[in-house]
Amino acid sequence: MKILCNRENLIQGVQVVLRAVSAKTTLPILSGILIKTEVDRLYLTATDLELGIDCSIPVQVIEHGSLVVPARIFSEIVKKLPDTKIELNTNNQNNILTVNYSPSQTTINCMDSEEFPVIPALEENHNISIKSSIFKSMVKQVAFSAATDENRPIFTGVLVIIENDIFKTVATDTHRLAYRNTTLEADTNMNWQAVVPAKALVEVSRLIQDDDEMIDIIFAENQINFKFGNISLLSRLIEGQFPNYKQVIPTSCKTKIRVLTKALLDATERASLVAREGSNVIKLKVQENALIITSDSADLGKVYEEVQVELQGEEAQISFNSRYLVDVLKVIDCEEIVIELTGSLSPGIIRPVDANNYLYLILPIRTN
Amino acid sequence: MKILCNRENLIQGVQVVLRAVSAKTTLPILSGILIKTEVDRLYLTATDLELGIDCSIPVQVIEHGSLVVPARIFSEIVKKLPDTKIELNTNNQNNILTVNYSPSQTTINCMDSEEFPVIPALEENHNISIKSSIFKSMVKQVAFSAATDENRPIFTGVLVIIENDIFKTVATDTHRLAYRNTTLEADTNMNWQAVVPAKALVEVSRLIQDDDEMIDIIFAENQINFKFGNISLLSRLIEGQFPNYKQVIPTSCKTKIRVLTKALLDATERASLVAREGSNVIKLKVQENALIITSDSADLGKVYEEVQVELQGEEAQISFNSRYLVDVLKVIDCEEIVIELTGSLSPGIIRPVDANNYLYLILPIRTN
Repeated sequence: MKILCNRENLIQGVQVVLRAVSAKTTLPILSGILIKTEVDRLYLTATDLELGIDCSIPVQVIEHGSLVVPARIFSEIVKKLPDTKIELNTNNQNNILTVNYSPSQTTINCMDSEEFPVIPALEENHNISIKSSIFKSMVKQVAFSAATDENRPIFTGVLVIIENDIFKTVATDTHRLAYRNTTLEADTNMNWQAVVPAKALVEVSRLIQDDDEMIDIIFAENQINFKFGNISLLSRLIEGQFPNYKQVIPTSCKTKIRVLTKALLDATERASLVAREGSNVIKLKVQENALIITSDSADLGKVYEEVQVELQGEEAQISFNSRYLVDVLKVIDCEEIVIELTGSLSPGIIRPVDANNYLYLILPIRTN
Repeated sequence: MKILCNRENLIQGVQVVLRAVSAKTTLPILSGILIKTEVDRLYLTATDLELGIDCSIPVQVIEHGSLVVPARIFSEIVKKLPDTKIELNTNNQNNILTVNYSPSQTTINCMDSEEFPVIPALEENHNISIKSSIFKSMVKQVAFSAATDENRPIFTGVLVIIENDIFKTVATDTHRLAYRNTTLEADTNMNWQAVVPAKALVEVSRLIQDDDEMIDIIFAENQINFKFGNISLLSRLIEGQFPNYKQVIPTSCKTKIRVLTKALLDATERASLVAREGSNVIKLKVQENALIITSDSADLGKVYEEVQVELQGEEAQISFNSRYLVDVLKVIDCEEIVIELTGSLSPGIIRPVDANNYLYLILPIRTN
């Protein structure tokens, strides 16, 4: 392989695929990035076998070839390269890559590309197209509710549902649940659902560079593929039965309050500072015109917060894990929200006042 | 105690003194901040017994008093306060502080101010005044050369020397040495020297908010006090004999090269990426017109860097720990530097081309 490329493109390619390189892998080859020429581009690929990312950059190919470069050291070298024409030159006999930036050069010990796992191409049965900005907002509002604990894998995923032109996402860690939908620009004539690792969706979100571009999502039996710009991300799907989310969402309520998102967030965050030391419990007391939030810790002290609300229905009391409330208030893109309650033992529901495409459910905590 | 204050001032005061609160202290009282009213100000004080910081902020005093607040939780609460008038109110009977931000409030369990160690006022025998910007630049160019290993305390300090209107600073970890001097605006008529913990100087640098203000430095037998703006920082001095730095600085050289600082930094940083895996060793080879820097690691690969230089004197070869070279090239505020060498076993000297107030010495590494 012998190619000429520029520094900025090389940095972008390496930074993108680096996200799929696992820090602790038992297979040495997975600590590398496969680089491979194709026509007039260089393809960079990394995978941890769960998630694979590839990114292609424009280069001038003098001689085709491929090689696996050690990811960490290669990324550090690339970041420090001078802003001149860069030549990558490999001697395929001994897997050594020479990075030339005249008059200086670095040679890196690499691995054989034959050892790199093949990432299978998907049969393009089903695919949809969605605007990046909408996709990002969905991931932001839903993915945080997935569990991070790998013991029950199904809860580390986001349920993705396509019903014709409706795209739905649901995540739950069994203590809270987030739901968001959107209407696609074109009818997909599809009825499909699968559980996608939340981590993969978050990676796609992070890697999006242009909020106006479209993301193509290709669905297969065990895998899902996201294509956008010069990037392709492939993830396995999570096997297992996702809980019936419709069943847990109450259809009516006895108490409904309207409150400013920011005011409630600030009050909840302050209450959580003291609550955190204990079990994160904050108590909410809904009165005519005011929501009283209190928390206390024997060691630290007490917080009493009063937030203005508009009440419909009954006064109420309920306790929540403050973190679950803070999480949603940080991602809900609406100045005002509605909280719906039905007694202190039923889940609380939070919605934006201006849209019915989002819903968040929190299970209460029993307190005395 | 009962006072009214504003949020921004309170945040500043807490953030400043928080730097002196040790994360791991065996004395619970030292995890707190002493707050105490005096005339129309609130004094906040923290100390880890090595370093004490106090900061005063304007407040409206309704009732005088003092208390020790738990530093971590108090700083978190203060950061989250709304931007309204804040009332701090203590009930001295039970050491509880109430933070009122109507209509809400937080109460914090505190400690008795009687338990807080008294920070002694210094007798103001000797003091000098220096401009913040100059002080910061001296600390930046010298303090990094002090050792971080506490086993030999003397090397964790910076030797500070006052000779009439000359202010000198020296630091060494025995592998390299940095020296910087400046001329003060007024003659001090003093001859004084002491070893100040590098950490204390770095803290003062960090806390300086206005580069144009003057810092007053007050010297006592065992302590040093820095006063600037509304902040006072008191540090113990380090006891022991600082090595005779003049003795180790060569007075002549056989090789002298002039090189662009940035070009040398970039080349050294690239070489250090591969050198780091081993023992950080990079080799320098001075030729007519070019400095060749090389490094290699059996595992990773090799770097060959060529940097343009102007040579006076003999060609030369020498090996350094790359980190010691990178460190100085990052802080030397001059586009070009001079490197002076005398064979491969004598220390290398680095100076800015445009000033003779700074000098950096690196001991070579013996290689084959």
